[in-house]
Amino acid sequence: MGTIGIGMAGHAFMGAVHAHAWRTAPRVFDTRLTPVLAALAGRDGVRTAAAAAKYGFAAAETDWGALVARDDVGLVDVCTPGDTHAAIAIAALEAGKHVLCEKPLANTVEEAEKMAGAARAAAARGVRAMVAFNYRRVPALAHAARLVADGALGEVRHVRANYLQDWLSDPAAPMTWRLRRDRAGSGALGDLGAHLVDAVQFVTGERITRVSAATTTFVHTRPDGNGGRGEVTVDDCALFTARLSGGAVAAFEATRYALGRKNAMRLEINGSRASMAFDFESMNELWWFDGEAPATEAGFRRILVTEPGHPYLAGWWPPGHGLGYDHTFTHEVADLLTAIAEGADPLPGFDEGLRVQRVLHAVEASAADEARWTTVPDDEETAR
Amino acid sequence: MGTIGIGMAGHAFMGAVHAHAWRTAPRVFDTRLTPVLAALAGRDGVRTAAAAAKYGFAAAETDWGALVARDDVGLVDVCTPGDTHAAIAIAALEAGKHVLCEKPLANTVEEAEKMAGAARAAAARGVRAMVAFNYRRVPALAHAARLVADGALGEVRHVRANYLQDWLSDPAAPMTWRLRRDRAGSGALGDLGAHLVDAVQFVTGERITRVSAATTTFVHTRPDGNGGRGEVTVDDCALFTARLSGGAVAAFEATRYALGRKNAMRLEINGSRASMAFDFESMNELWWFDGEAPATEAGFRRILVTEPGHPYLAGWWPPGHGLGYDHTFTHEVADLLTAIAEGADPLPGFDEGLRVQRVLHAVEASAADEARWTTVPDDEETAR
Amino acid sequence: MGTIGIGMAGHAFMGAVHAHAWRTAPRVFDTRLTPVLAALAGRDGVRTAAAAAKYGFAAAETDWGALVARDDVGLVDVCTPGDTHAAIAIAALEAGKHVLCEKPLANTVEEAEKMAGAARAAAARGVRAMVAFNYRRVPALAHAARLVADGALGEVRHVRANYLQDWLSDPAAPMTWRLRRDRAGSGALGDLGAHLVDAVQFVTGERITRVSAATTTFVHTRPDGNGGRGEVTVDDCALFTARLSGGAVAAFEATRYALGRKNAMRLEINGSRASMAFDFESMNELWWFDGEAPATEAGFRRILVTEPGHPYLAGWWPPGHGLGYDHTFTHEVADLLTAIAEGADPLPGFDEGLRVQRVLHAVEASAADEARWTTVPDDEETAR
Amino acid sequence: MGTIGIGMAGHAFMGAVHAHAWRTAPRVFDTRLTPVLAALAGRDGVRTAAAAAKYGFAAAETDWGALVARDDVGLVDVCTPGDTHAAIAIAALEAGKHVLCEKPLANTVEEAEKMAGAARAAAARGVRAMVAFNYRRVPALAHAARLVADGALGEVRHVRANYLQDWLSDPAAPMTWRLRRDRAGSGALGDLGAHLVDAVQFVTGERITRVSAATTTFVHTRPDGNGGRGEVTVDDCALFTARLSGGAVAAFEATRYALGRKNAMRLEINGSRASMAFDFESMNELWWFDGEAPATEAGFRRILVTEPGHPYLAGWWPPGHGLGYDHTFTHEVADLLTAIAEGADPLPGFDEGLRVQRVLHAVEASAADEARWTTVPDDEETAR
Repeated sequence: MGTIGIGMAGHAFMGAVHAHAWRTAPRVFDTRLTPVLAALAGRDGVRTAAAAAKYGFAAAETDWGALVARDDVGLVDVCTPGDTHAAIAIAALEAGKHVLCEKPLANTVEEAEKMAGAARAAAARGVRAMVAFNYRRVPALAHAARLVADGALGEVRHVRANYLQDWLSDPAAPMTWRLRRDRAGSGALGDLGAHLVDAVQFVTGERITRVSAATTTFVHTRPDGNGGRGEVTVDDCALFTARLSGGAVAAFEATRYALGRKNAMRLEINGSRASMAFDFESMNELWWFDGEAPATEAGFRRILVTEPGHPYLAGWWPPGHGLGYDHTFTHEVADLLTAIAEGADPLPGFDEGLRVQRVLHAVEASAADEARWTTVPDDEETAR
Repeated sequence: MGTIGIGMAGHAFMGAVHAHAWRTAPRVFDTRLTPVLAALAGRDGVRTAAAAAKYGFAAAETDWGALVARDDVGLVDVCTPGDTHAAIAIAALEAGKHVLCEKPLANTVEEAEKMAGAARAAAARGVRAMVAFNYRRVPALAHAARLVADGALGEVRHVRANYLQDWLSDPAAPMTWRLRRDRAGSGALGDLGAHLVDAVQFVTGERITRVSAATTTFVHTRPDGNGGRGEVTVDDCALFTARLSGGAVAAFEATRYALGRKNAMRLEINGSRASMAFDFESMNELWWFDGEAPATEAGFRRILVTEPGHPYLAGWWPPGHGLGYDHTFTHEVADLLTAIAEGADPLPGFDEGLRVQRVLHAVEASAADEARWTTVPDDEETAR
Repeated sequence: MGTIGIGMAGHAFMGAVHAHAWRTAPRVFDTRLTPVLAALAGRDGVRTAAAAAKYGFAAAETDWGALVARDDVGLVDVCTPGDTHAAIAIAALEAGKHVLCEKPLANTVEEAEKMAGAARAAAARGVRAMVAFNYRRVPALAHAARLVADGALGEVRHVRANYLQDWLSDPAAPMTWRLRRDRAGSGALGDLGAHLVDAVQFVTGERITRVSAATTTFVHTRPDGNGGRGEVTVDDCALFTARLSGGAVAAFEATRYALGRKNAMRLEINGSRASMAFDFESMNELWWFDGEAPATEAGFRRILVTEPGHPYLAGWWPPGHGLGYDHTFTHEVADLLTAIAEGADPLPGFDEGLRVQRVLHAVEASAADEARWTTVPDDEETAR
Repeated sequence: MGTIGIGMAGHAFMGAVHAHAWRTAPRVFDTRLTPVLAALAGRDGVRTAAAAAKYGFAAAETDWGALVARDDVGLVDVCTPGDTHAAIAIAALEAGKHVLCEKPLANTVEEAEKMAGAARAAAARGVRAMVAFNYRRVPALAHAARLVADGALGEVRHVRANYLQDWLSDPAAPMTWRLRRDRAGSGALGDLGAHLVDAVQFVTGERITRVSAATTTFVHTRPDGNGGRGEVTVDDCALFTARLSGGAVAAFEATRYALGRKNAMRLEINGSRASMAFDFESMNELWWFDGEAPATEAGFRRILVTEPGHPYLAGWWPPGHGLGYDHTFTHEVADLLTAIAEGADPLPGFDEGLRVQRVLHAVEASAADEARWTTVPDDEETAR
């Protein structure tokens, strides 16, 4: 069993949870490859050094180029805002480093295409790339995907996918890079909607083929922290109707103005044989309706997804002793370490990140065109 | 199809809902016997006449004796406080009138024994008596009882039965007859606990054999409405542990001080094959856990008890269009009318009311004896 | 206090629940005007006579023209399929009879305009018309509307309105008039979506100004009961995004294919000060989030809408003793009787029914035009 | 900022989660003292060495005496079955090592008294001892305790405390040391009931003064894994009614036979001003009913206890990104490290562990005496 040096770029919220995951995964799962927290990169030297010490990295860098160049770094974990994803990830892949990149993959389809191309080229050399759609590693959703793949849901007819937060509900909440198109690419759409798009495609095993969309910005300027006001250049919410490749109708909504909903990533799917419902605010529960039970006995079942037989659970605690948000990242890096050790491509790869990017792009195109149905380009190169 | 004249004693809360039930039952169910609201009796002539007009009774009486004596009354419905149950019911039965009597059957075991004796004698003459434990007619509980009887629950191990209200939580809430032992017999015990005792015996099909109990009065005097204070002479809450005839352990609690719980008549039963949970505040839902499902698929199912195949539902609305509190009384009188028309003894009869009374008595005896285990007398004459 | 003769057309599901409401309302509310069940009209003489006897009507007619012409009928209650609404309602209004008409008001905007015109003309003569959007009379939604009108919700930002049923989920479910455009006008859109449109406008006090829509039919033919197959000519589901007059973004979905959802009429509204959520499957609960509470104490509150101070509750049972589906109709006819007695126009009137019809029409137009944003015509004549 | 060497005895379920906590706490909280995983002790050399490697301990021992004697161990973490708690903890304290001891503190009151005595003696020398009632560190319960201490609940009237699991529901489940009185002291009582006793006393700030109890064993022998059967010598469930020092009535139940309940540690408390409810199966939620809100607006509020202002949350993730079971242990060891660094006695100390032990003893005494009320000895030495 070998080790692999982790070089992480970015040390805010995502950096903290990724670091936790790298430390924890080998203590819970048999990952074959043990991560070593080699170096952390950030722009501010003092703060980066403090973060490195706190999170357990051996070294700190103030330049991501230096991070990528380090000999003790075998994997680059990209936790920066979207505008730097492409540059860092491509450089790392070209330097022969495996890459884990936060979502959305990029700020534009063009960037995403370049990244996917770089990942394909790297894969040919045994270098792996993964995009961090961590909700795939919520045990309840992983279990649902398994049931759907087994045919238990039947033909998918309806999807309701909402990702509801409320941290912008107050017009006095300040500007952040997440509200600037040049940094974040888009607003609720890319931040929250991207998770929904990936999760729906993951659980159903189908692709979004076309969309009709509307985006809105409720509050156009916000306090910039320096006594002035900054301009919000992204969407506050995005709603879209979509068709899936199997014929289902899907309703998506991503917003940061759903007062009272803190992290309500909700998925409801109706099939011809069964239905499921999920809300991340109760992340250990999967609700499942078996449509083939007798009518007098049928009902949505609250499955506590904490059994040893559930995905990822064998390594954790006994039934009913639930998991939290960070566990999804621990599962994610464990799967990535295993894929690297086994010489396999991890899922979701950059091609899947690109596919999500194309859906986001189609959403914006439709929203700019009177909500008209807009096709998501199919990509023969894009393999699942 | 004939008719039967209904004579009702009492026109407060219970009178109102019983009258609604008598009017509604023949419009929804095929009862074979159609009730005619013949006469209403109350102590105050003016208020009784107004209530009779409002509820649809053809006549009003200020003396229950006169009510019982009326030729146009074939069934006497006793909706008065407990201290008059025995006198009215026995007189009615002896006069050859069928009787529906509110619960608890009586204020003492002695009264209940006399009433049960009168009911047995009347039954020999084809005259029927029923005690109004309406929670048996909640479709969810009737369905649960059916599942248990079919063996779906297996061996009963645990029962948790709570009946929680909060209308006495405020010490400034005024005196009522329900807080006087001479009128009501007991407090939360007889008012709420009696429902639990009957419901548990009904759903499990077992009997309570012994109890260990505690009763408490939190507030000893209350405003009497005349500027003075009246003495509370009943329990505010009653808790007891019980053993069922099949070996299960049961925890009971009845209280009027559970702030925020309005009518939380809750039942949770764990068997060797399945478990169930119910809360009257969501009365159209039965939660059922099938212990024989694979661990990864098992979970409490929220069965909406509104399907045509569920008890009492065929006459009502389509699935998902729920029922309310009053429907349980409509079911109750429909069953009683059917039993009378078919010459059968309705359930629960006075013998079952007596059995509940014996449990209440044992609870008070145990509470007065340091919570020591107290046996509920078995009664060979008491048939289910 | 006078009486008013009720003449009802149609005796299926809606007829049964309306009859229950007419019988019950004067026993619970002080309606000033007492309804008398005068006559019931249906096409089949034998079945209509049986229904009249069961529901308590004094007479039966096999021709709605005869029903309208009866001297003992003062109000005509239209419970027939949509294709006959206009003819019956207009004839009744012209004959000076008050009208209660089931929803949606009509099968087309043209019919609805004529009906609204007839209602305005009748109102000038003191004859009243109401459309039966009974969900306005769910106490939880009436209470929510009151809170919103009081400003407790602040500015409305998001609406999520779903009406989910599953009775068509099985492709073997048979044809009914509800699946024929000539009888029903539309499918899930008019049957379920109409309720959502009215409820959203009622609770928010705003109007839907434009829509972007998609409709789908999953199953195109169904068994016709005679060994053949009938063609489904309506939508199985309708999804639309809408803008409200105050700037909010609303997502609507109506479907009969949401396996496991029996009558899930769900409304979630996010405002700038508060949020609410409702699901008719738990109709006695209103969930309310107060955004101005301290963050550590804030949360969605489950308000049991069964307090005497809640709309319609004073006449019913004590707190926690919930209501059911039929109570909403009892409230509806009680309000109508009161309006007639007081010489006031009941709400919602035919103008509001017309407004809903215009939204439904815009939905179909958008769905036929690539989901493009479609404006709902404003109508100066249409008063709230 | 210094470091402290952790020596852990036991490496099963509790060992795994404690190790995770020791590794994680200094990465999330400012603990001032950084734990170093020095050595792990277990009986089987091979398995202990493997566990040490997996969990990150530098060394392994097969003798707890050697563990206690190590110079690099500054704190001994006792994760073994109850029969060894007293010996290890007392030896460690006498050797000047701080101690964290799993619950229940001991198998008997006598042992617990000796341990509490040793802890008092050690405290005088600056050596700290803590008992691991981790449920105090569930943010929802810590927040509830704070609200109660602030008077928000008013006078406590009712407590319902259930700890329901189901892993013994199947009679074929095998023997374990947890079912042997000589190893575990008691069954569901000490394992689950001890948590309830501590949590109730923690949240209410009151003491249990007397109990009336029943214990039961449903299944008397179980497969021993060697083809024979072992005798179950502990309780399968324990139910008791208790009085709190402030006059409240409390109902307790601990069982391993509540089919479908996996780790339902549930607490419901009714006060004169407010009520609360909690279920560990949804550990991020605290339900709070404010009894002083207007009746029409009052309801149980689902507070997601994930705000930065909630106990322990500042170090974790944004609102709505919930925590799991292991986080409670991370909080526990963080508090202990802080207490040691600050020279303060951690809570709960061994005196509180002793107090719980006395309640457990009184429960067994009452159960052996016909459920008669049994007083829990007051202890002047026992400080909160």
